[in-house]
Amino acid sequence: MATPLHVLGFAGSLRKASYNGAVLRAAVELAPADVRIETFDLHGIPLYDGDVEAAGLPEAVQRFRARIAAADALLIVTPEYNYSMAGVLKNAIDWASRPPDQPFRGKPVAIAGASAGGFGTARAQYHLRQTCVYLDMLPLNKPEVFVSAAHQKVDAEGRLSDEPSRAAIRALLEALAAWARRLGRA
Amino acid sequence: MATPLHVLGFAGSLRKASYNGAVLRAAVELAPADVRIETFDLHGIPLYDGDVEAAGLPEAVQRFRARIAAADALLIVTPEYNYSMAGVLKNAIDWASRPPDQPFRGKPVAIAGASAGGFGTARAQYHLRQTCVYLDMLPLNKPEVFVSAAHQKVDAEGRLSDEPSRAAIRALLEALAAWARRLGRA
Amino acid sequence: MATPLHVLGFAGSLRKASYNGAVLRAAVELAPADVRIETFDLHGIPLYDGDVEAAGLPEAVQRFRARIAAADALLIVTPEYNYSMAGVLKNAIDWASRPPDQPFRGKPVAIAGASAGGFGTARAQYHLRQTCVYLDMLPLNKPEVFVSAAHQKVDAEGRLSDEPSRAAIRALLEALAAWARRLGRA
Amino acid sequence: MATPLHVLGFAGSLRKASYNGAVLRAAVELAPADVRIETFDLHGIPLYDGDVEAAGLPEAVQRFRARIAAADALLIVTPEYNYSMAGVLKNAIDWASRPPDQPFRGKPVAIAGASAGGFGTARAQYHLRQTCVYLDMLPLNKPEVFVSAAHQKVDAEGRLSDEPSRAAIRALLEALAAWARRLGRA
Repeated sequence: MATPLHVLGFAGSLRKASYNGAVLRAAVELAPADVRIETFDLHGIPLYDGDVEAAGLPEAVQRFRARIAAADALLIVTPEYNYSMAGVLKNAIDWASRPPDQPFRGKPVAIAGASAGGFGTARAQYHLRQTCVYLDMLPLNKPEVFVSAAHQKVDAEGRLSDEPSRAAIRALLEALAAWARRLGRA
Repeated sequence: MATPLHVLGFAGSLRKASYNGAVLRAAVELAPADVRIETFDLHGIPLYDGDVEAAGLPEAVQRFRARIAAADALLIVTPEYNYSMAGVLKNAIDWASRPPDQPFRGKPVAIAGASAGGFGTARAQYHLRQTCVYLDMLPLNKPEVFVSAAHQKVDAEGRLSDEPSRAAIRALLEALAAWARRLGRA
Repeated sequence: MATPLHVLGFAGSLRKASYNGAVLRAAVELAPADVRIETFDLHGIPLYDGDVEAAGLPEAVQRFRARIAAADALLIVTPEYNYSMAGVLKNAIDWASRPPDQPFRGKPVAIAGASAGGFGTARAQYHLRQTCVYLDMLPLNKPEVFVSAAHQKVDAEGRLSDEPSRAAIRALLEALAAWARRLGRA
Repeated sequence: MATPLHVLGFAGSLRKASYNGAVLRAAVELAPADVRIETFDLHGIPLYDGDVEAAGLPEAVQRFRARIAAADALLIVTPEYNYSMAGVLKNAIDWASRPPDQPFRGKPVAIAGASAGGFGTARAQYHLRQTCVYLDMLPLNKPEVFVSAAHQKVDAEGRLSDEPSRAAIRALLEALAAWARRLGRA
């Protein structure tokens, strides 16, 4: 049997009861047999500061970069704040992208997001896709996973209980595995 | 003589020698007689965390919100990282935008940015404009201030010395004053 | 009593039973007492061709430009095809925008759209907003009118019968009137 | 020796002396040995009209769709008008995208553009990339080909004579061939 695809997943929210965190946990649960999802918690990644960088990458940033570099593919779960990506997510990407050896290059990527509103972070996801162009990431076109009305889909224990959302996440991971294999990863 | 227009300016970079910081300082110098620019330094604004928020807005965030609310108009100077706004800038906006009483609503806004590359943060600025739609800010359409090849335009003392860039910033502030007055601010 | 605000409305679809046409007709019906909506039908605007332009603006384009120039404000109703504005709409804007004397400059604009899908042309509307930056149009930030699932909201006679959608259009026109007056139009 | 990659190229301008037409012609000249570029002229594609479609796809649209379907990969050369794709290009894509059997799905795509201004159609290209998400096209991330100041780079005979632009186009086609082969095309 083939080695499972090694996916690094992260969600751009620090809030414990985050809907996007719930999506990420659901992805771990729902991963198909040939996919293993490791998650990275963005707590600890500081605000990007070029003067700090000049003195050496912070340890959390080094760990984040190493985990990205080691992964076959990525799962990025983005909140939408103010019609764009969460600053917390963008900041983590900014740190991880610093030259040399930016680790995103060539990674197959699956994108998802959850919001209380009606569009499920679509606006943020299109901005993230533009960021992927610069970083030379290879995002899946389909499926797009927009978990809207998330307050009705995540239960009191923080579990994404909505079945159609869970099916969409499963389909996303299957598509990611197929895409990564087509691209010669894993 | 009329009260000067009170503008709050901030740049989305923490680096001391930031090109965008240089643009902001140039704006302070170049402000026309009827415009007074106060600046806000984003150092001290923490990463957005809904759990922290639930315990009360951090003091730096409260100060930032109060300065925005007190201003007649805003000047936002945005770096571009990875084809979008700097995470540091977006994060500060995310904090400041929290309900109730998000302070951006209805503010006239001037947008500028500087980068070593050729487009002068244009991609980031269009993302910022989408954020302005949500926050109901009223950005100027023109002039768009794209300071490209900024490493050749900021001198060793961190001063934006390029005359065309300085003229563009002066024109931006004049347009902001006219726009704010047309909208009934100041 | 003040002169009514003179709004030119157009929809970016040529199909007779177009949902976006239904939105435009509903706007005419729902206009508040101080707003008069004239509509322009894009049939007859040819495909943009610089060689044709060099020989003189086509008659339909001249009429379109004159109607835009004469209006106090605009209502643009955009379909979304392929995650952007309808080509038919963009083409009409391209013709009308030709120098000298592009007529869009400074016009207050209300934006709406209808689609069978779930986002009500949101993606197209954000692209249109970027076009407004170049043309120096002044679009309303709010309300954003996204008529989703339009096939369930337009009846067999082509009338937009969905009451929440009608209320949203009414609110849009009221906001447009207030915005145009604030900007000194009409 | 392998079959050459069969690329269909089209430019979104109808003007004879179009800069984007010049880019397309240069691409034909500069194609590496393992790439054969066929071009399609958008003259003859009418404005999209759902009522016309209901009566049957126009002959020019049928030919365009058949050429797309038969190609291993695409080269799309987009003008930028009013900070987005040319209406003429978007309209052609709208026709070609109609179900069933939209022919763009899964096609590797190279994107380029030329403009007299400074950004070489970058804004239009990002909108086109969003359209690619919907249509499930697979655009190259790099190189991005932005031919700026095109009036200085296309000679009186309509030939793109600027050597760096020509090198960029050659690199784009080489990258397209590698990308298409990696994806299992040709």
